[in-house]
Amino acid sequence: MPCPIARALDRVGEWWSILILRDAFHGLTRFDQFQRSLLIAPNMLTKRLNDLVAAGLLERRLYNEHPPRYEYVLTDVGHDFRPVMIAMMAWGNRHFAPEGASSIVVDAETEEAADPVLVDRATLRPLTEADFKFAAGPAANDDVKRRMAFVDRKRKKTDG
Amino acid sequence: MPCPIARALDRVGEWWSILILRDAFHGLTRFDQFQRSLLIAPNMLTKRLNDLVAAGLLERRLYNEHPPRYEYVLTDVGHDFRPVMIAMMAWGNRHFAPEGASSIVVDAETEEAADPVLVDRATLRPLTEADFKFAAGPAANDDVKRRMAFVDRKRKKTDG
Repeated sequence: MPCPIARALDRVGEWWSILILRDAFHGLTRFDQFQRSLLIAPNMLTKRLNDLVAAGLLERRLYNEHPPRYEYVLTDVGHDFRPVMIAMMAWGNRHFAPEGASSIVVDAETEEAADPVLVDRATLRPLTEADFKFAAGPAANDDVKRRMAFVDRKRKKTDG
Repeated sequence: MPCPIARALDRVGEWWSILILRDAFHGLTRFDQFQRSLLIAPNMLTKRLNDLVAAGLLERRLYNEHPPRYEYVLTDVGHDFRPVMIAMMAWGNRHFAPEGASSIVVDAETEEAADPVLVDRATLRPLTEADFKFAAGPAANDDVKRRMAFVDRKRKKTDG
């Protein structure tokens, strides 16, 4: 499927995978750390870690030779998933934390809470539905083009 | 679980749920539209749509009385998931679209491609790993506080 969201989900479209990545962003690297954190069955954890390694988001590294012990660290592609994670965290905090946020993102120096917002890098304008729309990219096939023509018609109808 | 990411995943932690939301952002509203788009088994689509309604992301609306027909439209909470979707799309395009992006976000007027980046709303600084860290929020319990103390120690170790 050419859709970038579908391709992203091929790599992380599992509840556990996202929570393992969250833990990796928190600095956890070892099997037993993930297991204690997630209370996940060992065979499931093994499978999810292997999937994330195969998808190129985690790298398996030997950290002890005798006995052989491995740790799992984020690759560049894995690190680059961080904005998705933070956007998800902000959404969870806004809508599903009536008692207040239990984890947030803060300025590393001042510790002041950040308010994450997605903007266009060049213009710094927030990517709101009013100002920015989904569209076919340069590599779009006919299916995607038809889809995006539908999006456009629908959008004009809603505006009008 | 107090973690906002875990709570977010409780609502959308399914491959299909995210793709249904993607379609909803594209303007699809009807059962047969989702089905044609996703080639998903009807019973699975029914279940996922019901889950998204129960989670408060979609609203079920009667659009035809005889025979009764329903459509599914994004609620405010559903609309607010859009930044997560766009961040995921940008990540997918960056890493898993060697042939080029097939779908993107563009300025609704000029149709110029946007380059999505997550920033702090007040300062407009990108939320990079170097400048912003995860931390316990005001409603953090002892588990989360312990976790975030670990994050901090790990971070200092990596910096040093």
